[in-house]
Amino acid sequence: MRLAAHGQQRLLCTLLIPTPAPTMTNANDHSPHHSDAASQRSSSTSTESQRLRINAGWIITMDQQLRVLEQHSLVVDNGLIIDCLPWATAEQRYSDMAAEDHRTAILMPGLINAHTHLPMSLLRGFADDKPLQDWLQNHIWPAEAAHMSTEFVRDGTRLALAESLLAGVTTVNDMYFFPNVTASVCHEVGMRATIGLIVIDFPTAWASSVDEYFNRGLALHDSWRDDKLIQTAFAPHAPYTVSKDPLERIAMLSAELSIPVHMHVHETAHEVEQFKQQHGVRPLQRLDDIGLLNADLIAVHLTQLTHREIERLAETGVHAIHCPESNLKLASGFCPMAELLDAGVTVAIGTDGAASNNDLDLLAELRTASFLSKALSAQATRLPALQALRLITIDAAKALGLNQQIGSLETGKSADCIVIEPDFGMIPIYNPAAQVVYTNSSQCVTDVWVAGRRLVANRQLQTLNAQAIRDSTQRWRNQIAS
Amino acid sequence: MRLAAHGQQRLLCTLLIPTPAPTMTNANDHSPHHSDAASQRSSSTSTESQRLRINAGWIITMDQQLRVLEQHSLVVDNGLIIDCLPWATAEQRYSDMAAEDHRTAILMPGLINAHTHLPMSLLRGFADDKPLQDWLQNHIWPAEAAHMSTEFVRDGTRLALAESLLAGVTTVNDMYFFPNVTASVCHEVGMRATIGLIVIDFPTAWASSVDEYFNRGLALHDSWRDDKLIQTAFAPHAPYTVSKDPLERIAMLSAELSIPVHMHVHETAHEVEQFKQQHGVRPLQRLDDIGLLNADLIAVHLTQLTHREIERLAETGVHAIHCPESNLKLASGFCPMAELLDAGVTVAIGTDGAASNNDLDLLAELRTASFLSKALSAQATRLPALQALRLITIDAAKALGLNQQIGSLETGKSADCIVIEPDFGMIPIYNPAAQVVYTNSSQCVTDVWVAGRRLVANRQLQTLNAQAIRDSTQRWRNQIAS
Repeated sequence: MRLAAHGQQRLLCTLLIPTPAPTMTNANDHSPHHSDAASQRSSSTSTESQRLRINAGWIITMDQQLRVLEQHSLVVDNGLIIDCLPWATAEQRYSDMAAEDHRTAILMPGLINAHTHLPMSLLRGFADDKPLQDWLQNHIWPAEAAHMSTEFVRDGTRLALAESLLAGVTTVNDMYFFPNVTASVCHEVGMRATIGLIVIDFPTAWASSVDEYFNRGLALHDSWRDDKLIQTAFAPHAPYTVSKDPLERIAMLSAELSIPVHMHVHETAHEVEQFKQQHGVRPLQRLDDIGLLNADLIAVHLTQLTHREIERLAETGVHAIHCPESNLKLASGFCPMAELLDAGVTVAIGTDGAASNNDLDLLAELRTASFLSKALSAQATRLPALQALRLITIDAAKALGLNQQIGSLETGKSADCIVIEPDFGMIPIYNPAAQVVYTNSSQCVTDVWVAGRRLVANRQLQTLNAQAIRDSTQRWRNQIAS
Repeated sequence: MRLAAHGQQRLLCTLLIPTPAPTMTNANDHSPHHSDAASQRSSSTSTESQRLRINAGWIITMDQQLRVLEQHSLVVDNGLIIDCLPWATAEQRYSDMAAEDHRTAILMPGLINAHTHLPMSLLRGFADDKPLQDWLQNHIWPAEAAHMSTEFVRDGTRLALAESLLAGVTTVNDMYFFPNVTASVCHEVGMRATIGLIVIDFPTAWASSVDEYFNRGLALHDSWRDDKLIQTAFAPHAPYTVSKDPLERIAMLSAELSIPVHMHVHETAHEVEQFKQQHGVRPLQRLDDIGLLNADLIAVHLTQLTHREIERLAETGVHAIHCPESNLKLASGFCPMAELLDAGVTVAIGTDGAASNNDLDLLAELRTASFLSKALSAQATRLPALQALRLITIDAAKALGLNQQIGSLETGKSADCIVIEPDFGMIPIYNPAAQVVYTNSSQCVTDVWVAGRRLVANRQLQTLNAQAIRDSTQRWRNQIAS
């Protein structure tokens, strides 16, 4: 999602769609509003009773020692990992459990997309090869203004979740309008999600005033407070679109309620320069002054950083989210990932929305991040493959404050995991982590579990209706293109 | 393939394997040497008698106007495209022809991988995250020295062709040892290939002297001279590994016999610097002095170019091959693709070998090239998607001297084409070219024809034995890793 710089306030008025009474405004309402086959399924996210043994050729654990285990089984009970041991021992010790055989495949933690705008998948490829401001002002905003609705968000989220799950993503950190709808769809599908409570200075179809953004956001937070898979984060759009007062309120509420803050920061040189002209300081300084630079901040993009700013991010424990393909495609600049890592900042990777990428393929995004890091530092040894995988697993979990539950395959953690069955583009396997990072591995994802629940089985979506998604996507395409 | 700088001659002696009597040294011998099911198939590359009508949702023609046709049919007879017209008209006019329905899919020219080392697929992921010289000297060369054989080349080529075809590649420009084996395997599979007649100053398992490289290379050229799908190119490895005399001989023979010259040029700053110290000029100047800078030269990598060198490449009509992912992963530098295009140089894209990439996914390679081009020039408008596709179709054909036969879907050209069936990561489709370039589209390739012959049908290889490739790859993996 992109919104205007202060100077472009007039254009944002195109977003002033009269707020309808959305069919899904009540965040407490978790029931599916649409009657396709998938949403008619039971969508309980309560703990699973399924007991399961997954036999894998390799298990990339992403535990503290980054162990890669050969010919091991992961044992799952009640949605949690209860053991990880060699095939033969597992066969004896857990002979009563159903076994899933993936003996030539790699099992690894489910992937965590640390920044995206799921519903924008419906605008994938709507406008390409444009400079950022042209893209936004003349294409994306008018399209959003014309089509934004609970239905748009619902259908766009379903499309994005289908793509994400089939590419091995089990957790998304989302930011968009109608977050109540996104939350409901994620819940209905069984996806783990951090749902952004969007705040922005300008009225939109979701809220007509800053107060309403807060009220609806806090109600949404409250309604999902005890959910196992859905958490919320404040999502002030960016320093240039959210003024000081709401940011101060977010700083206070974030600390009080222990809610992370998810925000675009320093995406382009233009926005940093403009902010400095208007406010006399760079945006990061403003956030620092307000007290937002802390371990709850999930700061996205960061293509413009001074050495001192990098140090400050490290000192304050801010988490950095790198979205390389969106930055490259929009020619926004280069996030100094290697320097951030050297300084000790936790870095994770996001795809951004499909309108600027144009896909949600997190493994490809990591590959791009890794290649860029090596090339920009002129050091091929930078970020070896297994270390790189931290950025879409355990370190991404840390960024979202979820590292006690997910991000690695260890006893006691949630069974969020994926199977990658190597095809001709991934064999031979000398080092499974290298093949996962450096080849087109997302196309080899065959099976996906979230909290022990099977969401993809042998490349088939289990909780989404594939044909219904194709049909609704085609309808939106015709409507938006017309 | 990588070989040593002059200063590292001693290390290259590891390549001094006693030349065996390879089982496939006779390039005239096109018969398969292995008895798996695929190679027992008839492998005729003679013109096909099949008459076929392919109905596609979109045809990206890559013709001079870069037309994208909706709801059109491509009509193929005897291996050639004979018509391209709307569905209904095709239905009437060619009612006698079998129809292939791909009404929700994209049909486009088969992709041309303008630089690769097919057999190195067996070393995919064998050594990663190493600086170039460490990677070469301590990992790749010793492995090649220990395992290089006709069998290695045969099995590695089959693996690479399986991966390539399933990703939509229908033409490869290859450089490796035992090119006779590569040629035979490509012939047997039905792949279109430009086979590099490798020349290098040092003895290898393929040839023990410069004379032998020439003799075997010219014999190979002669034996495939009239083949429809196999052509040859001189392949002097690089200016730093092939001295002046053989380069002069190649310049003369290339002109006499009209054979292109395929060569690594200015891959790293290190090699350019070292060459200059030893010879007083940069490598490109040496090639210019010898008369090798002309429209027959296919110059690969080019990460180190002065403004004057770019002008000179344009003046002389040299073709530039950009291999972005290999350059990024080995931290070799950045090819100034945008500047080359601005100067009027024909640019095409190569994956390089799988040992340094680590895949042969040409569409992903183009995406990386496109993103880099936008980001490095800070212009999102650089190389719009449809223009970008030229680099793996018509302009790549031009670089290989094959643009009369392939590279676009036009009446009279060969029916080298592929079907891309968009999945959840590619829809909706507002602009098919953008989705092909900017999403993970290679995983959506379902059908592939070369000269009208079906090599992939509904994601299944038609002329390669998938299980045999998996088995031989596993055997090589065990042997090489042990």
